[in-house]
Amino acid sequence: MDYNKRALEMHEKHKGKIEIKSKMPLDNQDDLATAYTPGVAEPCRAIHKTPSDVYKYTSKGNMVAVISDGSAVLGLGNIGPEAAIPVMEGKAILFKAFADVDAFPICLKSQDVDTIVETIYQISPMFGGINLEDISSPRCVEVERKLKELLDIPVFHDDQHGTAIVVSAALINALKLVSKSIDSVKIVINGAGSAGNAIARMLIDLGAKNILTCDRNGILTSDEPQNNWVKDEIAMLTNPNKLSGSLTDAMIGADVFIGVSSKDAVNEDMVKSMASDAVVFAMANPDPEIMPDVAFRAGARIVGTGRSDFANQINNVLAFPGIFRGALDARATDINEAMKSAAVYAIADLVKDDELSEDYIIPGALDESISSAVSRAVYDAAIKSGVGTK
Amino acid sequence: MDYNKRALEMHEKHKGKIEIKSKMPLDNQDDLATAYTPGVAEPCRAIHKTPSDVYKYTSKGNMVAVISDGSAVLGLGNIGPEAAIPVMEGKAILFKAFADVDAFPICLKSQDVDTIVETIYQISPMFGGINLEDISSPRCVEVERKLKELLDIPVFHDDQHGTAIVVSAALINALKLVSKSIDSVKIVINGAGSAGNAIARMLIDLGAKNILTCDRNGILTSDEPQNNWVKDEIAMLTNPNKLSGSLTDAMIGADVFIGVSSKDAVNEDMVKSMASDAVVFAMANPDPEIMPDVAFRAGARIVGTGRSDFANQINNVLAFPGIFRGALDARATDINEAMKSAAVYAIADLVKDDELSEDYIIPGALDESISSAVSRAVYDAAIKSGVGTK
Repeated sequence: MDYNKRALEMHEKHKGKIEIKSKMPLDNQDDLATAYTPGVAEPCRAIHKTPSDVYKYTSKGNMVAVISDGSAVLGLGNIGPEAAIPVMEGKAILFKAFADVDAFPICLKSQDVDTIVETIYQISPMFGGINLEDISSPRCVEVERKLKELLDIPVFHDDQHGTAIVVSAALINALKLVSKSIDSVKIVINGAGSAGNAIARMLIDLGAKNILTCDRNGILTSDEPQNNWVKDEIAMLTNPNKLSGSLTDAMIGADVFIGVSSKDAVNEDMVKSMASDAVVFAMANPDPEIMPDVAFRAGARIVGTGRSDFANQINNVLAFPGIFRGALDARATDINEAMKSAAVYAIADLVKDDELSEDYIIPGALDESISSAVSRAVYDAAIKSGVGTK
Repeated sequence: MDYNKRALEMHEKHKGKIEIKSKMPLDNQDDLATAYTPGVAEPCRAIHKTPSDVYKYTSKGNMVAVISDGSAVLGLGNIGPEAAIPVMEGKAILFKAFADVDAFPICLKSQDVDTIVETIYQISPMFGGINLEDISSPRCVEVERKLKELLDIPVFHDDQHGTAIVVSAALINALKLVSKSIDSVKIVINGAGSAGNAIARMLIDLGAKNILTCDRNGILTSDEPQNNWVKDEIAMLTNPNKLSGSLTDAMIGADVFIGVSSKDAVNEDMVKSMASDAVVFAMANPDPEIMPDVAFRAGARIVGTGRSDFANQINNVLAFPGIFRGALDARATDINEAMKSAAVYAIADLVKDDELSEDYIIPGALDESISSAVSRAVYDAAIKSGVGTK
């Protein structure tokens, strides 16, 4: 199917993807007087008296803002806030379809960190959570960290944590299949943006000890200053032996390759140089770092991509709907490490040991059991870690 | 019916009033690839190439932000952004029910004019129009004027212009019934906030020459400095003979009373002192300046209120849905005087001469013909006045 053509046709036919629907009837004068004046004054008074009643009488508790500045949209780059709207609307309808979370797209004029933070703070009263999306690195990390301090509702940059969670779940299952342990494998991450950073951090939390991260200039090492502070952080956290070299050098003997970079970044010889039972996650979209058939031919045992037309689709949609569902249900003030970790294991555990195979290390995006499993685990972790307030 | 009790029950049962609905199917892998990656990249590219395509491929063209800072909510005062949400959600569902306009509530933390303007500017890419609501005077006037200069989408403060439009329509018909001419009647407006200001301005545009506006301290006159600049403007525009005195003094011999003030502001003796065939619009909500039965007993011929349980309900819901429908359909860059004036006559004309009576000077809020009549007139005026771009 030609998705590009169909996407244009469908977006034009429906004039976008979201609409606002009333949850209350408005059929007669009584309905009008209940939903609007004079009746509406009563929930207003109640919330003014008891601020937490905003969760009882309004849509806030189920409403997430999907916010972008249009600076790093898909693989398209800095295309601006208007051109980013289709992606944010898409995210909004996925939230609704997979987890009954109401989500509304907000696209911002400015790409200045403090302006973004201030704007989101200003509009926060209507929202029960903030999903940041497609903001370029390193600004996205700054925006998220500042907002987490400022707001008492969860803030989650999906390109960082959603990606890290799904990759981690896929890797746990892949390593189970090849009988290797996370603390002994050599992992190469290609791409040193916010996603690469979040993946490295989460894998270290899971026990990984030997990670090399590469950008276009090769292996990041703390011996050399990087061109932004996120890369400096990655260099500090990874590459304990302070190796230098190219991606080709890094790949020699690697057990795991994780690509959050671009088309054709990896060739057949690089995969050939990896250790036996190699795991290759080539997640550049829409064209992966190496095509699965080429990776298999070069000796990879397990291959995952971001695409729906190959086995093992490693896609954020497995994580974000259930994570926000769980966080909102717990009325959590944060999405913390415990909740993210709970999401990782909830996703990984959906593939039972007797189902696990080279073609099935992670559930499919349309598997309806995912979001409820994730939300339950995230809810429990929120309560247990003390950020759930309900 | 006890609307307060029912409102609390219904708001709690539904957890607010709005939800987000998908306009596109999401039933299978093809749908997912059309609405989200990889297909979604294509409308993004198209908008990046041709910015006006944002109206073709996204929900922007039908999406209005209903924005408040919670500083002047209904008659409840400065109750803050969270407590304002029920009103903004109510407005959103009225937009949808009456004119198929999608509207989303935004409640702001700050009550500072420049912060409000900057925040709305920042979030404007997603919206085809801005409806300001329940912001206290005189800040609301400043916010609206600044935004109109800054944005190329229509900005409309409903408490000012929606009220002025509906009052003007009702007054045109009331004067027809009592066979008086707008340029010869004496009009008293009680309430010198943004609504009083907008009403005075619109009636002057319609030909009124003798308007006295009162606040708590009596008649506003340009001989005396007022305590804010909106009142100074009103004083300059009205009261040509520079009269001073109380509301009681102002009412003597008046043909028309328009109340945008508070409960019991007018007593029986004041109405008795008015001219014959007096018109009384007592629009304080939920309790009018004088109850209709008392006003009639004192000799008023025509009485209107803001309430649905009396005849002649003068309510903004007659105006704002159709006004935005017309403005959005014309892809107007502004809602200008020509469009507002068109709305006035469209509403007034819905009451045919042979239907016009003391009990029926304005159509009922649930009359389904209103929004299409208003939107058609507003659309035509937008095109004719040059602000329509479609």
